[in-house]
Amino acid sequence: MIPNSILVDALIPVDLLLEPEWLIPIEPAGITLTEHAVAIRGDRIVAVLPTAEARQRFAPVRVQALPGQVLLPGFVNLHTHAAMNLLRGYADDLPLMRWLQERIWPAERRHASTDFVEAGTLLACAEMLRGGITCFNDMYFFPDAAARAVQRIGIRAALGLIVIEFPSAYAHDAADYLAKGMAIRQSLIDDPLISFCWAPHAPYTVSNQSFERIVLLASQMELPIHLHVHETQAEIDESIAMHGVRPLQRLHQLGVVGPHLIAVHSVHLNSTELDLLAREGAYVAHCPTSNLKLGSGIAPVAQMEARGIPFGLGTDGAASNNRLDMFHEIRLAALLAKGANGDAAVVNAHAVLQAATLTGAKALGLGAKIGSLVAGKCADMCSIRLDDWITGPCYDPASHVAYVAGREHVSNVWVAGKQQLQDGKLVGIPDQSLSEMVKLWHTVITT
Amino acid sequence: MIPNSILVDALIPVDLLLEPEWLIPIEPAGITLTEHAVAIRGDRIVAVLPTAEARQRFAPVRVQALPGQVLLPGFVNLHTHAAMNLLRGYADDLPLMRWLQERIWPAERRHASTDFVEAGTLLACAEMLRGGITCFNDMYFFPDAAARAVQRIGIRAALGLIVIEFPSAYAHDAADYLAKGMAIRQSLIDDPLISFCWAPHAPYTVSNQSFERIVLLASQMELPIHLHVHETQAEIDESIAMHGVRPLQRLHQLGVVGPHLIAVHSVHLNSTELDLLAREGAYVAHCPTSNLKLGSGIAPVAQMEARGIPFGLGTDGAASNNRLDMFHEIRLAALLAKGANGDAAVVNAHAVLQAATLTGAKALGLGAKIGSLVAGKCADMCSIRLDDWITGPCYDPASHVAYVAGREHVSNVWVAGKQQLQDGKLVGIPDQSLSEMVKLWHTVITT
Repeated sequence: MIPNSILVDALIPVDLLLEPEWLIPIEPAGITLTEHAVAIRGDRIVAVLPTAEARQRFAPVRVQALPGQVLLPGFVNLHTHAAMNLLRGYADDLPLMRWLQERIWPAERRHASTDFVEAGTLLACAEMLRGGITCFNDMYFFPDAAARAVQRIGIRAALGLIVIEFPSAYAHDAADYLAKGMAIRQSLIDDPLISFCWAPHAPYTVSNQSFERIVLLASQMELPIHLHVHETQAEIDESIAMHGVRPLQRLHQLGVVGPHLIAVHSVHLNSTELDLLAREGAYVAHCPTSNLKLGSGIAPVAQMEARGIPFGLGTDGAASNNRLDMFHEIRLAALLAKGANGDAAVVNAHAVLQAATLTGAKALGLGAKIGSLVAGKCADMCSIRLDDWITGPCYDPASHVAYVAGREHVSNVWVAGKQQLQDGKLVGIPDQSLSEMVKLWHTVITT
Repeated sequence: MIPNSILVDALIPVDLLLEPEWLIPIEPAGITLTEHAVAIRGDRIVAVLPTAEARQRFAPVRVQALPGQVLLPGFVNLHTHAAMNLLRGYADDLPLMRWLQERIWPAERRHASTDFVEAGTLLACAEMLRGGITCFNDMYFFPDAAARAVQRIGIRAALGLIVIEFPSAYAHDAADYLAKGMAIRQSLIDDPLISFCWAPHAPYTVSNQSFERIVLLASQMELPIHLHVHETQAEIDESIAMHGVRPLQRLHQLGVVGPHLIAVHSVHLNSTELDLLAREGAYVAHCPTSNLKLGSGIAPVAQMEARGIPFGLGTDGAASNNRLDMFHEIRLAALLAKGANGDAAVVNAHAVLQAATLTGAKALGLGAKIGSLVAGKCADMCSIRLDDWITGPCYDPASHVAYVAGREHVSNVWVAGKQQLQDGKLVGIPDQSLSEMVKLWHTVITT
């Protein structure tokens, strides 16, 4: 043993020292650093500091320069149905209820199985990693099958323990969904990359009794509640007819609205409801593409920003988007807030990047673990090439990530310190295998 | 000489026979063909016909199979300021008038020169070709410099003969802009890839007298009039204060509104104005990204569709978009129309692809020449890979182009029969040259 005192000025061993051209740490907010490095040991960020200082303090196993690239926390996709990648573009140009009732639900009744979920989720995970998404919040049947895909590919996931009143191949009634959810969570409780949400599908598919049970369980287990809400005007009208109140009011009475709530969509909110979400500290998962595509409307994101309601971004599933691409959601969220409010200054580039990273992490209860590049957090990161002529010149890297770059510019991705994308290529799975899976399932679904 | 009668059953020589997996000809509308080929001789499409028949009828110099790819007419970008690629992302999160007055116009006063325009336009042309755009409608100073870039790279362009009342490095008053425009058009009149529009900048920057002159010249020369109009509410308010009427009413009185008009933006239209455009047969250049980004608003595209007002799509310039990417505009135009109208069925995939091709061509007076894949038209085409695992599975190629594919999936591009992009690489100019140009001008503009 060497006495500690001698080590004071010795170099600190780390696994990796990353030296990007630019670094957007998200915390502190609104800044872009140059000549800064990130030191990583195991799954953690050890330090974010000036490169010159980093070279003096650390003895890295490997130094990786990232010239022309900006380093960011990996994106957090706050709402998706990963398995639905197999139904990408299966039904377009249809409104939500016709889309669900005539196309999606029948297809799901025919196909949704553990194999379907594992394959679809694997393809979704591959698509997300390729585009800089390191964590996603899922809602689908057979979360145990989704977990197998997640574990195979090495992405971080919050798996939704889905609850819905109608039977499926996965579970036969609400009690069964709840029991299966509990068991799945118990079986995966030690996986460092997997966390959970209770995922009651929507106010119109879940009973008061089930909501009450979920609120209790979520509180006991300290899990978020991941829920579609106020997606369409029709949902609100139906709730008034059936329950005498709008869905959020009913949910509030049931104890659902609070800092544990991830209110997905939240398209149609009056000012009382905006105040309610703000007061209760609830999170919104804003899914701008899906909301437009299904004709649901435009969520009042500028009003959320003004009230301090934290909103993250979600792609929704590939059957209603049709692309699990956070660059599209980032760009659209910023643009749409500006256009819908006649104010180009709302939801600026740094604000929307924070929504796509840290706010999503906080909504999932992972704010202390991921979502920004600060010492002690997990090394979930992505680097994006800004030196392609097709995106040049670059005057402001944050604005370039928000408005110019595409997922094709994502170069490297790390999850918990492990590199999962290298120079645009997935490390864990060959493209050929993914193509074969696509082909196989396309045949299964169309025959 | 061989007597004609003997040749009846002989094979017809063509330069190229393209055999894509899918073909979306745009005319007839709304269809996707399989097992069809396109025969090309020189700059023209000779036939679009079943592949089996094509092989019996034609003797091609070259046969090119395009497995996994869909062939479409090249996209027509109906509104841009190509040279502004050098100011990409130069000023973001600002409203139109602050963006123009505080950032863009000062930068242009400092930098806009023939060199700036030639370099910026070349980069824009490269970006557009890379993304399947084969024709663009430009508006900028020094259209002669833009022409040099266009000729160097081999894209098709409608160059705007800009007219504005204030002096610039290009011209000192309206008469000078008009005279320079006439001379430039005369000097390039034989270029088969270049056409022209009169391009009075906007109602608030062009006088009645200049509009009257332009209407006369446009009629004599049979040129379209390319004009920003009703972009913001402020423009309308100012016109009411200055002229006592809204801009479109003033323009109508001046004879500007007709089938020769390309009304760019057209964000704020009341029903009288929608009726006017429909009745007069005017075209709209819808620029959804730019309109959102500058906080201008959302153009009533579903209402245009209902009234049969023909709308094409434009990227606008890279300083307000910030990407000359028709895939983004196609997707956003379809999504936004649905979301803003609460109707997922409006502006469907085939409709938006028609806007991005044939309608743009017609607006430019090029409807007989380009915009669809039919015999006799110029072979301006692009093929898009739909077999990447990241976009799979594919159930409907038209919907896949509109909602899933990105410009990174554009594989091949032809302009007037000449291949300008091959397997995603520009044929005419090395990436390295483009990168060097970006670097050089970034330095010039930031120092």
